[in-house]
Amino acid sequence: MPKQVDHQERRETIARALWRVVERRGATHLTMREVAQEAGISLGQLQHYFGSRSQMLSFAMDFAGEQSGLRVGRALGALGERPHPRDVLRAMLLEMLPLHADARATSRMSAAYVLEALHDEEVHARARGALLQGRALVEEVVRRAIADGYLAADRDPAVETDLLLALTGFATLLELDVVGPAAARTAVDRHLDRLFAATGAATGNLGADADADADAGAGG
Amino acid sequence: MPKQVDHQERRETIARALWRVVERRGATHLTMREVAQEAGISLGQLQHYFGSRSQMLSFAMDFAGEQSGLRVGRALGALGERPHPRDVLRAMLLEMLPLHADARATSRMSAAYVLEALHDEEVHARARGALLQGRALVEEVVRRAIADGYLAADRDPAVETDLLLALTGFATLLELDVVGPAAARTAVDRHLDRLFAATGAATGNLGADADADADAGAGG
Repeated sequence: MPKQVDHQERRETIARALWRVVERRGATHLTMREVAQEAGISLGQLQHYFGSRSQMLSFAMDFAGEQSGLRVGRALGALGERPHPRDVLRAMLLEMLPLHADARATSRMSAAYVLEALHDEEVHARARGALLQGRALVEEVVRRAIADGYLAADRDPAVETDLLLALTGFATLLELDVVGPAAARTAVDRHLDRLFAATGAATGNLGADADADADAGAGG
Repeated sequence: MPKQVDHQERRETIARALWRVVERRGATHLTMREVAQEAGISLGQLQHYFGSRSQMLSFAMDFAGEQSGLRVGRALGALGERPHPRDVLRAMLLEMLPLHADARATSRMSAAYVLEALHDEEVHARARGALLQGRALVEEVVRRAIADGYLAADRDPAVETDLLLALTGFATLLELDVVGPAAARTAVDRHLDRLFAATGAATGNLGADADADADAGAGG
């Protein structure tokens, strides 16, 4: 191996090794020694890149977030030039669930990170920041869908965004085999069907009068 | 203190001490020594009741589940003799979220338990069993609501149950201050509004023809 290995590349190799360990055993009892072993380097080499376990975990979380972003980007790219917001939200939501190996590692790391956040202010701030960023992206799609007439104008974008994010609760149900992958996808689709119901936009009726009130969503 | 303290009572005292520690610091780094200190007993006395940390955690989880059940029971009792299934589901759902101290401790313990489950088959089986039990209770309410005409007959009870359970995803959003308690309640209400929309049952029209299809929930 050449002496001048690209630092970012090496850090990403380590992050991927960390994911594999998390995938196998969860993040709670993760040690730097295990990650070094998985990455095929010495503990000393690993410590050259990350001064502490939490530094390593934070980098792996950030890198996982970037990778998720890239995967969502690719999924959205495949939807064509003006994708339906329903398909955009579906792609974003499904990527947050442990439905394939990389997403599962991300989901498990996030869960461990949230637990750490309960008694570590710095982790709390980081985890909160990442979630708020994700929330803002989803809310932007919802707001644009309302503006473009895809969603009824009486939908509250903040409430709809919260409900979409809350569906990440499927992560636990999937991990514990309480709900299978197909059932989780079906449920997400049902939620999106209902969210987009009662507007003319399903037929591509852009800019139509979106003041539909057939759905009593604002009641209660 | 008399020598013959009731064993179950003492175990519950310990469980409550454990909740308080979890509430303050999370369950990840929880030690038996901390719990003993919080309960005002010696480590030796604690070990008399629980042979290991995981035994102690399992008892605390079971006890938390029982207490949640009692709280839901009291909430349902307050709804009168023939409560609307919307109110029943609302009471069950809100109790699963960290909206008050006891529910928060339960929610945090559950989160830690799920992480342990990823690399411990016994914990996986226990956690899965508890969740399946909760899921069955929710599905029973949904099925009865359909049978009684409160919910449109074309609602799929399994899918609706999965969606309701997935809303426990609000736990993370609440813990990280991404969504506030009022917003979480509003979102749960919005979901229930939409679930119960488009049937005549909101006006107590029991046994009416529930074949409503104004809501395109079954679309693709």
